[in-house]
Amino acid sequence: MSNTSINDNEVDIVIAAINSDLEPFMNEWRPVFSQFHLIIVKDPDMNGELHIPEGFNVDVFTKSDIDRVVGSSTSILFSGYSCRYFGYLVSRKKYIISIDDDCIPARDTNGDLVDVVAQHIANLQAPATPFFFNTLYDPYRKGADFVRGYPFSLRSGVTCALSCGLWLNLADYDAPTQALKPEQRNSRYVDAVMTVPVRSLMPVSGINIAFNREVVGPALFPALRLAGEGKLRWETVEDIWSGMCVKVICDHLGLGVKSGIPYVWRRERGDAIESLKKEWEGVKLMEEVVPFFQSVRLPQTAVTAEDCVVDMAKSVKEQLGKVDPMFARAADAMGDWVKLWKSVGSSSPGF
Amino acid sequence: MSNTSINDNEVDIVIAAINSDLEPFMNEWRPVFSQFHLIIVKDPDMNGELHIPEGFNVDVFTKSDIDRVVGSSTSILFSGYSCRYFGYLVSRKKYIISIDDDCIPARDTNGDLVDVVAQHIANLQAPATPFFFNTLYDPYRKGADFVRGYPFSLRSGVTCALSCGLWLNLADYDAPTQALKPEQRNSRYVDAVMTVPVRSLMPVSGINIAFNREVVGPALFPALRLAGEGKLRWETVEDIWSGMCVKVICDHLGLGVKSGIPYVWRRERGDAIESLKKEWEGVKLMEEVVPFFQSVRLPQTAVTAEDCVVDMAKSVKEQLGKVDPMFARAADAMGDWVKLWKSVGSSSPGF
Repeated sequence: MSNTSINDNEVDIVIAAINSDLEPFMNEWRPVFSQFHLIIVKDPDMNGELHIPEGFNVDVFTKSDIDRVVGSSTSILFSGYSCRYFGYLVSRKKYIISIDDDCIPARDTNGDLVDVVAQHIANLQAPATPFFFNTLYDPYRKGADFVRGYPFSLRSGVTCALSCGLWLNLADYDAPTQALKPEQRNSRYVDAVMTVPVRSLMPVSGINIAFNREVVGPALFPALRLAGEGKLRWETVEDIWSGMCVKVICDHLGLGVKSGIPYVWRRERGDAIESLKKEWEGVKLMEEVVPFFQSVRLPQTAVTAEDCVVDMAKSVKEQLGKVDPMFARAADAMGDWVKLWKSVGSSSPGF
Repeated sequence: MSNTSINDNEVDIVIAAINSDLEPFMNEWRPVFSQFHLIIVKDPDMNGELHIPEGFNVDVFTKSDIDRVVGSSTSILFSGYSCRYFGYLVSRKKYIISIDDDCIPARDTNGDLVDVVAQHIANLQAPATPFFFNTLYDPYRKGADFVRGYPFSLRSGVTCALSCGLWLNLADYDAPTQALKPEQRNSRYVDAVMTVPVRSLMPVSGINIAFNREVVGPALFPALRLAGEGKLRWETVEDIWSGMCVKVICDHLGLGVKSGIPYVWRRERGDAIESLKKEWEGVKLMEEVVPFFQSVRLPQTAVTAEDCVVDMAKSVKEQLGKVDPMFARAADAMGDWVKLWKSVGSSSPGF
């Protein structure tokens, strides 16, 4: 599928355990995950015992670990889908891959199992090309290249910081779309990955994602929490918010973001009609959020992801804080996240 | 393949005849083209008699037509690949589709013949979404939609003005790439079409293209001609230059540009090594051209494609004219093109 050479020691796979029985999930992923180190973070709201099958190199973190490391002096909540971010915090690896626990491996058009790890790492290791659009998609892929007219000075590309994968079967639609088209399933396998151009915003989904933790780790955080946030993806926007931040930060730092392959197969879960009321808040918020992120500019003094998050948090507070207190809380959480990232990052690994 | 309803009277298919024997080309395209009106423009440099098979609704234009309509009081040259633009000028239809005469119909992953006309018209009739990236590609396509986090206020999209198709087998690489990888063939059929985001520049290829003539016709013109321009695609940049202009103009006017399906199958032609010397000039030029188009801004008073081309020509002359006389000539040709478009457009059709 790809000619990537992966150093197993450079990869952490982070799983947020929203469901207690991870056995079916992990058995499905065994051929892909078993050679890598896994970080499983149990949703602190969940009471049941986690079921994890044998044969994995795995560290499990629970509420007591979170309390011990993070303490209570922070505005960050790690409940629900946000628990995965605790895994991002304690990882010491170069690359992190994170897949929702309602997804199983997809198959490509040849019927072969998609190796999400290999493809995400290939996306992150090959340069990104945010400054000019290549019509034949990823120019570094085998059999592809830059097309006529592509400036030679831009052909070396930039570091890719974030790889956003896609979903077959149940796609990542919001609750209104899901409720309106309950039978809709995504069956189109688009065999492509591309760089999302600079200054183009996108809805980053946390369902199937990978990133270079050393470069952009501090910019992936659980900051925006809806009042009615639940345990279904379409009831959350924390990944969308963080995704806007990380895209603006990558644009500022001259890093790339890719979207496309690898796919996962996403299983049905939840009742969209029930979620509609909760989701509506998130839907409305986007109308405020998008113009903000389209216009926000980071200062030249911001040269690391940490710097950028701190500056972004200030702008969020100043410009969006008055629109809704939820944004002011998000700004606080972003500031706290950077402090946490620095303090946990400088402590010894493996607590 | 698509549920587009096409009014046959709204479509002109424009073919630049670089080769005199169009029989194999047109017989291959018969199932796709035969219901539409064709405009064939014979390269004025070509001496031989055109061979066109029976059974098409076709108007052929030659050097004498060009001389009669355009006259000699213009800086525009219609020779070689640029002859197709004469067809754009004399068309009176809403949509124009243009395919190079070394291409034949492609087959999709199911082995079905790709209907370029249906797909290009579908691309042009469905809205474009340049202001926010949809990770599942064209949200209007059957089985797709806008993903979670996509702002509802942007889901109605904007008019799509330009549809850029792709190529299987011999892709549109420049001569250096072609010479470096003589065996490289594109065999990846990516079943997607997407809007190229606003302010993202791209290399528009004239090989397989369609556009809304009423909206953006004046912005597709033969203006930049290399000193050593020849009769091979990789020896030309007229489409790349015009493509930069039309993308900036679409961004300014709030129109969309799409890239992706439909594919054509492009046959081998020409010797890349022989072309290398000629092409090198075009390759160098891009390094000047891209920063210009990335920074050029059109005034608010420019509200039509004609206005935009006139203003763009001024900027080209001012900012690039001193870099190379080729750019000054291109600026003159753009001004002349708009005059021609207005005068030919206001004359009676069917000369």
